[in-house]
Amino acid sequence: MITDSIKQEFIAIVTEKRYLDRQEELTCYAYDAFLVEAMPHAVIFPETTDEVSQILKVASSHNIPVTARGAGTSVCGAPVPILHGIVVCFSKMDKIIEVNTRDRYVIVQPGVINADVQKALQPFGFFYPPDPGSINTSTIGGNIAQNAGGPRCLKYGVTMDYILGMEAVLADGKIVQFGSRNVKDVTGYKMAALFCGSEGTLGLVTQAILKVVPLPETTKTLMVNFNDLDDTANAVSDIIGSGILPAAMELMDKFTLNAIEDSAGLGLDREAAGSLLIEIDGTAEACEKEMGRIVERLKANNAARIQEATSQAEQAQIWTARRSAYGVFARLAPNLISEDVTVPVSQVPEMIRRIVKIAKNHGLKVGVLAHAGDGNMHPMIPADKGNKEEWARVEQAFDEIFEAAADLGGTLSGEHGIGLAKVKYLPLVMNQDSINLMTRIKQAIDPQGILNPGKFV
Amino acid sequence: MITDSIKQEFIAIVTEKRYLDRQEELTCYAYDAFLVEAMPHAVIFPETTDEVSQILKVASSHNIPVTARGAGTSVCGAPVPILHGIVVCFSKMDKIIEVNTRDRYVIVQPGVINADVQKALQPFGFFYPPDPGSINTSTIGGNIAQNAGGPRCLKYGVTMDYILGMEAVLADGKIVQFGSRNVKDVTGYKMAALFCGSEGTLGLVTQAILKVVPLPETTKTLMVNFNDLDDTANAVSDIIGSGILPAAMELMDKFTLNAIEDSAGLGLDREAAGSLLIEIDGTAEACEKEMGRIVERLKANNAARIQEATSQAEQAQIWTARRSAYGVFARLAPNLISEDVTVPVSQVPEMIRRIVKIAKNHGLKVGVLAHAGDGNMHPMIPADKGNKEEWARVEQAFDEIFEAAADLGGTLSGEHGIGLAKVKYLPLVMNQDSINLMTRIKQAIDPQGILNPGKFV
Repeated sequence: MITDSIKQEFIAIVTEKRYLDRQEELTCYAYDAFLVEAMPHAVIFPETTDEVSQILKVASSHNIPVTARGAGTSVCGAPVPILHGIVVCFSKMDKIIEVNTRDRYVIVQPGVINADVQKALQPFGFFYPPDPGSINTSTIGGNIAQNAGGPRCLKYGVTMDYILGMEAVLADGKIVQFGSRNVKDVTGYKMAALFCGSEGTLGLVTQAILKVVPLPETTKTLMVNFNDLDDTANAVSDIIGSGILPAAMELMDKFTLNAIEDSAGLGLDREAAGSLLIEIDGTAEACEKEMGRIVERLKANNAARIQEATSQAEQAQIWTARRSAYGVFARLAPNLISEDVTVPVSQVPEMIRRIVKIAKNHGLKVGVLAHAGDGNMHPMIPADKGNKEEWARVEQAFDEIFEAAADLGGTLSGEHGIGLAKVKYLPLVMNQDSINLMTRIKQAIDPQGILNPGKFV
Repeated sequence: MITDSIKQEFIAIVTEKRYLDRQEELTCYAYDAFLVEAMPHAVIFPETTDEVSQILKVASSHNIPVTARGAGTSVCGAPVPILHGIVVCFSKMDKIIEVNTRDRYVIVQPGVINADVQKALQPFGFFYPPDPGSINTSTIGGNIAQNAGGPRCLKYGVTMDYILGMEAVLADGKIVQFGSRNVKDVTGYKMAALFCGSEGTLGLVTQAILKVVPLPETTKTLMVNFNDLDDTANAVSDIIGSGILPAAMELMDKFTLNAIEDSAGLGLDREAAGSLLIEIDGTAEACEKEMGRIVERLKANNAARIQEATSQAEQAQIWTARRSAYGVFARLAPNLISEDVTVPVSQVPEMIRRIVKIAKNHGLKVGVLAHAGDGNMHPMIPADKGNKEEWARVEQAFDEIFEAAADLGGTLSGEHGIGLAKVKYLPLVMNQDSINLMTRIKQAIDPQGILNPGKFV
C-alpha cells in the first residue's frame, strides 16, 4: 500500500504531473502483450537518473515493489506488476545523448524507441543491429531488460552483443556503472551482460552505451515458396549447415501466409506450404556470390518459386508482411499466445513437425513463424482464454512444445524472455542448483526483493 | 595448511599420481607471466567434472583456497595462488567432446589448447575466432577465465561472444549449467557471460559450448610502414572511422619492429617509425573492394610503403613476426611488463603520444604494440625488478598510463584481465558502489571466499 505520506515523498521527487494513481490511468500500465494483468498502485515518470535513484530510495525504505516499464510490448509478462507497488515508466527518459560513429557507439536513455536510434544513425551510414518485431514501438530499456533479438540477429547477434556499458540504479538507490565506450573491456565482472536480460529484477537501467556498426553496402531480399513444409525447414538447416550466414532467414507456414494475406493482400502465394524470407547483405559482389550459393541450396531442397525483390520498395513490402504477422494473428481470436522456443538449427525440421502434430492432437490452430536460421521459432496459437476447455488444451499443447524443444537440445526462449510465461518450464533446461544460483545473485543485489518481484527469480 | 588427513581425502578422489605436493613440483605452479609468485600447498589434476566437484567439497569443508589453472600464460597474475591452498590444474581435462559444424558449436573440456580447437575445426571449414597471443599454448578454460581477446577480435569479438553455454562447479561442489547449444538463448540470467572473465573467482568451468563460424573464403594481409608514428595511429582511427572493419589491424612502433628484427631477422624495415599489419577477410570480391578503400585511407595518412603478402607462407611469416613480439621483449631485460589499456579508437593517436611521453619522462624504454583497430594497446616496458630505483619509475609510469587511459574515456584492460596487476586502478574507471556490487555477487556465490582469493573481488 502507498499511504498518502509515501505518495507525498514520491511527488516531492517528480512533481504531481509525473505521478499517476487514478484507477483509469493505472489500467494502461497493468499489462503487456502477454495474458496476465495486475494493477500497479502508482505509476511514476522520472526524467533523470537522480530521480530514479530517489524513487528507489523511497520504495526500498517502505518495501514497495518496483517494476520498470518501457513501451509494454513484452510478450512474456515481464513488465506486469504482479505484486503491485509502483511502475517506473521510462517514457520521459527518451533522449539520444551522443552519437559517435567514429568510435562506433551511441549513448541513450532507456526510454528511447529502437527505431529512433536507427533514424539517428542512418545519416552517418550506421545502424544498431537488434531489430525486434516491436522495433517501431519498443524501447532500448525494454530491449535490454529482455535481451531482445529480431530477424537480423541471425547474422548480427542479439541485444547483449551490443551493450558496451550501462548506468543502472540498484534497489537501494545506489547508482552504478558498468563497461565503457570501449569495444574491448574486461575490467571486472561482465555486469552489463548480467543485467541484460535480467527483466528488471536486478536494477533499473538509466543509460546505455550501444555498439553500432556500418550499414552494409548492399541488401538483397528473397521470397521463396515451397510445396512442402519439411522442404522449407530442410532448406534452412541445409543453408546454415553449408556455412552460409544470411542476415535473416524467416520461415512462415501456410497458416501464417494466409493470415497475412487475408489482412494485407500483398499477393503472397496462398497455396505455398512454407515460405522463406531470406535477406543477405554485404558488398554487391559478396551478395551476388552468396545469393548464388543460397539459390543452389534452395533448388536442392525443392523450392517451388524463388523471387528476388527488385527495389527497396519491394523489400520494404516483404518485411512489412513479415512484421505484420503478430498483429494479424492477434486479430484471429480473443487471445494470442506467441511462443519462442529455440532449437539447434539442424533440429528445426523435426521441431516444426512436432509443433504441428502437438497442435493437431489438441485440436488447435497453429501458425509457425520462425527466425529459422538461428533455430528460433514462434509457434502462434490464437485462442480464447474465456473458453476454459479450449484454454486447457492450449496450455497442454505448450507444455508439450517446451518439452519437445528441451528434448531436441533446445531452450525456452530465444528472445522473449521468461517473465511470467515460462517460469514453470525452467527445470526442463536447468538443474535446481543452477536456478538457485540465479536466486542467490538476485538476493545479493536486491536483498529486500523489491525489484520486479514474482518473476523468474 | 593441508594436513595429512586432508591430503588423504584429496588422494582418495584423484589417486596419488594426480596429487603433487613436493616443493620442486609445486614451483611450476607458483607463477604465470606476470611478476608475482606464490606457492600452492598442493596441485591436483582432476579428470572429470565429478572429481572437480569432490575436490571442491573437500576444499570448502576445510576452508582451503582453490585456484584454477590452465596453461599459466596469464599476464596479470590471475592464476597465481596468492593465498596458497590448492591449485586445480586442468591439463588432464583437455578433450574435444563434440564438433558440430552443422549447428555451429564445439563442446570442449577446459584444458584443451585453443590451437587444438582450431585444428579440429579446420577440416570442416570452420574456426573459433578468439585468438590470444598465447593461442598455441593457452587453454580454453584460461581464455574463458580471462575473457581473452586477440588480433582478429577486432572483427569477430572476444571470448565471451563465443560462449554459448558452460558447466561449472561452485565452491561447495555443486555442478551448474548455463546456456545451451542454441545461438539464441535468453533463458534466465546470462550466467555464462558473468563467469566469463571472472578469473576463477565464481566457479571452476568444467565444460564449455563454443560457437564456431565458417572460415572466410579469402584472407589478405598487408604490412604498411610509416615514417611517422602519429600518421600510423591516425590511419587506424581514420580506417575505423570510415566504416571499414578489417579482421585485424595491429600497430607496432619502431622499438617493437627493431626488437623483432633483432631476434627474427625477417627483413622488417628498421627505419619505419610505425607499422600496421592489416588483415581483411571475406569473399575474394569483397576483399578486393575493401582493400581498395583501405589503401586509399593509408595513402591519405602518408603511408610510406604498402606491401601485400603474396602467399600463405608470407602471411604466416608476418604473423609469426607479430606473435613473436612478446617473447622478443621478454628477452630484453630480466622482467617485462606488458600492459593492456584500451581507449576509444579515435583516441589511439593521443594515447600513443602520452605513452611515449610518460616513458620518456621516466627514462624508460617502451615498445608500443596494439590491436589498434579496437583501441587495445599493449605498452611493453622491459626492466629489472631487482633494480629498485628503476622499478619505482616503472610503477610510476604505469600509474600515469592508466590515468591517461581513464582520462581519454578508456579502460584498464581489453583482454588481459585484472588479476593481481590492476586491482588498485579499478577506482579510475568504476565508482565504489559498482566495485561493491561485484563483491556482493562474489560473496553470494562463494560465501567462504575460497575461490581464487586475494584477487579483484
